[in-house]
Amino acid sequence: MSSTRDIDSLIDMMARLPGLGPRSARRAVLHLIAKREMKLMPLADMMQTVAATARECARCGNIGTLEICDICTAPKRANGMLCVVESVSDLWAMERSSSYKGRYHVLGGTLSALDQIGPEQLRIPAMIRRIEEEGIEEVILALAATIDGQTTAHYIADQIEGRVRLTSLAQGVPIGGELDYLDDGTISAALSARKDI
Amino acid sequence: MSSTRDIDSLIDMMARLPGLGPRSARRAVLHLIAKREMKLMPLADMMQTVAATARECARCGNIGTLEICDICTAPKRANGMLCVVESVSDLWAMERSSSYKGRYHVLGGTLSALDQIGPEQLRIPAMIRRIEEEGIEEVILALAATIDGQTTAHYIADQIEGRVRLTSLAQGVPIGGELDYLDDGTISAALSARKDI
Ligand SMILES: [Zn+2]
Ligand SMILES: [Zn+2]
Repeated sequence: MSSTRDIDSLIDMMARLPGLGPRSARRAVLHLIAKREMKLMPLADMMQTVAATARECARCGNIGTLEICDICTAPKRANGMLCVVESVSDLWAMERSSSYKGRYHVLGGTLSALDQIGPEQLRIPAMIRRIEEEGIEEVILALAATIDGQTTAHYIADQIEGRVRLTSLAQGVPIGGELDYLDDGTISAALSARKDI
Repeated sequence: MSSTRDIDSLIDMMARLPGLGPRSARRAVLHLIAKREMKLMPLADMMQTVAATARECARCGNIGTLEICDICTAPKRANGMLCVVESVSDLWAMERSSSYKGRYHVLGGTLSALDQIGPEQLRIPAMIRRIEEEGIEEVILALAATIDGQTTAHYIADQIEGRVRLTSLAQGVPIGGELDYLDDGTISAALSARKDI
C-alpha cells in the first residue's frame, strides 16, 4: 500500500537492527506512533543529535562526543594499565562491572583469516605506540574465549612480550562466551583472578 | 560521563521500546553509530517523516498517512464483511495472511474492568454506526482467546445480535494466544473455519 510506504520503510529499518526482527520492529513502530509526541519525536531528535556528535575517541576507539574520551583524559586512570578489548560494547561491559580503573584500547575486531582481517585492519599498531608513549606497565587482554579472540591474544602477546606485564581475564569467561553477555559479577571475578600469560 | 549523555539517552529511549532491553538497545545504538550515514541518519529522517505524517484512519483506526486508509477506500473490499480486531498490529497480521478481503475495524483495546476500559474507551459505538451505514452483512470478531478478548466479543455480540451474521475466528487460535504472534497459515485456517456465534 503506497500510503504506508514510509511506515513500512521505518519498520524495515528497525527490523534490520541487531537484536530486532520484523515482529519487534512492528511493535516498536506502532508504539512510537501511538506516543508520537512523548516518544517518536524525542527519539528522532536524539538520533539526529547523536548522528551529528558521536565520534570515536582518537586514542582508544571508545564512542563518545569528544576527540579524546573521558576515560582517556581522566587523570586518576593513568595508572599504567591498559585493557585491550575487541569492541566498544565490551569496553562498556567492563565499565559496568566497575572493577577496572585503568585505560582501554578498543581493537575494533579480532584477527580473522576467514574475513581477511589482519593487524592493520585493527588498532594493533596504535596499541603498540600507546604502550611506549603512555608508560604502560601492564596490558590486560580482555578478549573473548573464541578461536579468533585467542588467536588475536597470541598475536598481541608475540608483539609485546617482554616489554610489559601481560595478563588476560581468567576465571569466569566461558568458552565461546562474549564479554558483552556476561553479568557484572563474572567480569569482576575474571578481572581479579587475571593471570600472567 | 557527561560527554556520552546523549548516547546514553538514546540507548535509554531505545531500551524502553517493546521487545528491546538495555543490551539490545546498546547493540543497536553502537551499530547505528558505526553506520552513521547509511543507517543512523536515514532512520532519524524516516522517524521525523513518520512523526509528521502518520495518522489513524478516521474510519477504521488503521495507521497510515491518509485521513481514510487504503483498505477503507479500496472499492473491491466493499463486500459487506467487517473484521473487528483489537489493535493495528492484529489488522496487519490479518493482512499478512492474505486470507481476508473485506474491511476492518480496530477497537483500540479490549474491555477491561481492571483497567477501567468500557465501550466508550474503545471504538465500539463507531463500529455499530459503520455496520448500519456501510451495509455490513457479516461481522467477524477476530479477537484474542483471552478473558478480556472474549468478554469484549460477548459484549459486541449482545449489541449487534440479530442485525448481522456474527462470526469469530475458530480453529487454530490457541488459548491465551494473541493474533500478532500467530503464523500466517494458522490465521488463514482460523478464518476459513470461522463459525457462527
Ligand atoms: Zn578514549
Ligand atoms: Zn481505514
